[in-house]
Amino acid sequence: MADSPSKFPEVQGGGSLMIAWQIRGKKVVVVGGGEVAAGRILHCLNADANVTVVSPAARLNPEVAYRVRAGQVTHVNRNFEPVDLDGADMVLVAVDDPDASTAIWTLCKERRIPVNVADVIPECDFFFGSVHRDGPLQVMVSTNGKGPRLASVIRRFIARQLPSNAGRAIDRVGELRTRLRQMAPRPEDAPRRMAWMSRVSDAYPWDEMCGLSDEDVNNLLSFYPSGKVPPLDELKSMRAEPEVRTDVFDGSFGFSVGA
Amino acid sequence: MADSPSKFPEVQGGGSLMIAWQIRGKKVVVVGGGEVAAGRILHCLNADANVTVVSPAARLNPEVAYRVRAGQVTHVNRNFEPVDLDGADMVLVAVDDPDASTAIWTLCKERRIPVNVADVIPECDFFFGSVHRDGPLQVMVSTNGKGPRLASVIRRFIARQLPSNAGRAIDRVGELRTRLRQMAPRPEDAPRRMAWMSRVSDAYPWDEMCGLSDEDVNNLLSFYPSGKVPPLDELKSMRAEPEVRTDVFDGSFGFSVGA
Repeated sequence: MADSPSKFPEVQGGGSLMIAWQIRGKKVVVVGGGEVAAGRILHCLNADANVTVVSPAARLNPEVAYRVRAGQVTHVNRNFEPVDLDGADMVLVAVDDPDASTAIWTLCKERRIPVNVADVIPECDFFFGSVHRDGPLQVMVSTNGKGPRLASVIRRFIARQLPSNAGRAIDRVGELRTRLRQMAPRPEDAPRRMAWMSRVSDAYPWDEMCGLSDEDVNNLLSFYPSGKVPPLDELKSMRAEPEVRTDVFDGSFGFSVGA
Repeated sequence: MADSPSKFPEVQGGGSLMIAWQIRGKKVVVVGGGEVAAGRILHCLNADANVTVVSPAARLNPEVAYRVRAGQVTHVNRNFEPVDLDGADMVLVAVDDPDASTAIWTLCKERRIPVNVADVIPECDFFFGSVHRDGPLQVMVSTNGKGPRLASVIRRFIARQLPSNAGRAIDRVGELRTRLRQMAPRPEDAPRRMAWMSRVSDAYPWDEMCGLSDEDVNNLLSFYPSGKVPPLDELKSMRAEPEVRTDVFDGSFGFSVGA
């Protein structure tokens, strides 16, 4: 009975390995300059890659042409040649030419370069999903090819459910950790610091945490010396201006309370 | 003004490239057999990989040992040796030995094998996020290292917001597409079929679509010949048993209405 399968999570095949690839400062070669290429390029720039676009200038769509002019990407103004793969850490192909795509895919496999050929499933080491971005937060939705349109519908649904300041809240937790390290900098403080941070992470529902203000974080830090994590109500009751709802009024209205 | 930056999405650096890696039938080598390895192994099995675990049997945690006994993974019962990388398409390292980890990472780089060394950021081609899975639907949450604990809190928050039958709904859209292809099989029907499917995808909010029953799908298909997509209310009014709420009663209660 100790080995009953139900004791451990059951395998659910048919999925993908969902990963956050690191391409900061890496060379990504995008072959093609149309609408699909434009989307790929933005994904790569958002991950701080060095992007090279290989495509005749005449075939660049307005967004790609804009990024070339703005110096956001390097432009090779001609059709693909094998030399373009030199030094490439990743290759994204988005051209309407199946033979050319297959030739590029074959070269990438020989050189062991991860590659995605848009719309050609067997020529993809990986697929793209639909991605929601809010500062440090990224949420990717994949339907594993069952409904690409639905993936973006679901991504928008999720984005609407998330508190508007979710990314800010993640940064705030990062700041809390940094300030705690300043309060208790000795290496021997680390276990106590980490244990307290864990209790904080578990004590407050995450959507409530998104509503905490800088004032709340200051008040929260004052509990660290005692090792206590106050209930949320107690923390909120310490506010000088208890009615400020930072989750509703995020400043973008130019709305000011009290002051 | 035509080139105003606001015309195109602004680059937001600092993210990762979120991708769905395809490892069906590929060889993934997991070095280590502890708790972290167990999580990695499950991710890989859910994506249909052939997983080889390299670790002395004495150091396998109960979950990994169970998967070895169940024949879900191949087990190499000793410490890592370079020969273990032969034929590997991906390597995941989860051992508490920084020198050994760095040596494996160096070998993988020489052989251009994608690799993740747990907890060693500079030795990772990619990171894992927190993943929600529901049939064909996968949602990955990454905080880009700002708060790994928060990533799983946010993943659970998102999972609670999603309709309980979201994965089923994606399958249902896939079935709708398949049945439509049976109704209108000729190649020249394709544009009309695809246009109608697109209008269906846009006509119903996705969370409402999760509440559609098999009966609704049948009724919906009857509109295809006219090219019409009925408003949701009209579609629901066609139900023989209008009070069945499939989004609430998903059958797991053993609840039966009418019949």
